[in-house]
Amino acid sequence: MNKPLILITNDDGHDANGIAVLTRLMMKIGDVVVVAPDGPRSAQSNALTVTHPIRFKKIEETEGLIRYICTGTPTDCVKLALNEIVERKPDLVVAGINHGSNAAVNVIYSGTMGAVLEGCENGILSIGFSICDHSMDADFSVFEPCILKITREALRNGLPHATCLNVNAPVGEIKGVKVARQCDGRWTKEYAKRTDPRGGSYFWLTGNFENHEPESTDTDEWALSQGYISIVPTKIDLTAYQAMDEICGWEF
Amino acid sequence: MNKPLILITNDDGHDANGIAVLTRLMMKIGDVVVVAPDGPRSAQSNALTVTHPIRFKKIEETEGLIRYICTGTPTDCVKLALNEIVERKPDLVVAGINHGSNAAVNVIYSGTMGAVLEGCENGILSIGFSICDHSMDADFSVFEPCILKITREALRNGLPHATCLNVNAPVGEIKGVKVARQCDGRWTKEYAKRTDPRGGSYFWLTGNFENHEPESTDTDEWALSQGYISIVPTKIDLTAYQAMDEICGWEF
Repeated sequence: MNKPLILITNDDGHDANGIAVLTRLMMKIGDVVVVAPDGPRSAQSNALTVTHPIRFKKIEETEGLIRYICTGTPTDCVKLALNEIVERKPDLVVAGINHGSNAAVNVIYSGTMGAVLEGCENGILSIGFSICDHSMDADFSVFEPCILKITREALRNGLPHATCLNVNAPVGEIKGVKVARQCDGRWTKEYAKRTDPRGGSYFWLTGNFENHEPESTDTDEWALSQGYISIVPTKIDLTAYQAMDEICGWEF
Repeated sequence: MNKPLILITNDDGHDANGIAVLTRLMMKIGDVVVVAPDGPRSAQSNALTVTHPIRFKKIEETEGLIRYICTGTPTDCVKLALNEIVERKPDLVVAGINHGSNAAVNVIYSGTMGAVLEGCENGILSIGFSICDHSMDADFSVFEPCILKITREALRNGLPHATCLNVNAPVGEIKGVKVARQCDGRWTKEYAKRTDPRGGSYFWLTGNFENHEPESTDTDEWALSQGYISIVPTKIDLTAYQAMDEICGWEF
């Protein structure tokens, strides 16, 4: 049997430590093609580049590994890879390792998960890996064997249609793995206001995450707070099925 | 009772016809604050500006209407409005009218729906309006009374927690309104490859939408194809609950 073909991208850019670690790990499992942004693209969600064209360039080719950089978003990287770069459909798309949590509502802003949803949308087994440490020097060593185990289990078992995985790791010791749901919560106090030398105001995004259900023990935030890796099966279909009947009763 | 306070944004930019029409309509219902991107931000999904600061500027103030432009994405516009611009929490966030369909998987790429999800994430009734016509001269006249009716019904009935509405209109005559689910499908042949005068390749995003369930009569794509407005109740929680048990059985 052929080795699996694995497409890797991220949102911290091609030169981040996280993607270097993920690439090294995935080379133990299959042949790897990296198509990563040429610089940071954090919080790019599923954004696509539509107002200008994008380009890609090969920067490395060795046994079992080809690396490209791309001028677009993480989702652009996956689309461009599937349409123009890889010769056959990959068996797996992985993104990360993201420097920073993609748990709870972060999933909807995450460029990492944007890439993962794009792989999934194309019918490919897709997994995002993130660690709850924004530092560019984050220590991935404890997480590494878990990434291999989760990836091998995913390849062995597959996932339901239009479903991918959002995997987040706590900092430090790992007690185990919890399959969890996306925690309800929101960001508050989101801007730092500054004044430029000419007196104009400008705003930097920042903020605090507010967990709306700190008592729930089945959420990704809870799992992470207790030292577990959280795995949230994540889907592309955003339909709120439970609300459909109610809205059908409205007077149009 | 005070008039409702309505926050409006879009992804086609503050000077698009769609947002002008939506602003005129919403002024019949409440006091309006527009915070719109200063240029086109299509397909920006829930993207946030994190690598540089953003700014906003008031460009108009008249009876019942204040308009601002913002240098960020549609989601930035909503975040900035809620954190730094409006004096009280709006009763409603509306985005659009988008020039182009946000049905089916388009919802995950849409800047319009990114803004709507952001309003929803902040506990505000939120609705996105789009028409299946990319032209900047799209004719909204048939859609207009439906927008008023849907908005009034939403204000009267409210929506379940963390649920918003994705409303799309067909081109031409409208037969009625269907509450629908997000159609399964994907984009194919996504890039036009061009060569620059120096011989380098560049790629423009384009593509064809492939409906994976053309026979289903409960999807947004079906409703639109039959001349109905589609309303998809849409949620922030991406958890694939039905996959959780299966993954709990994996060997970690």
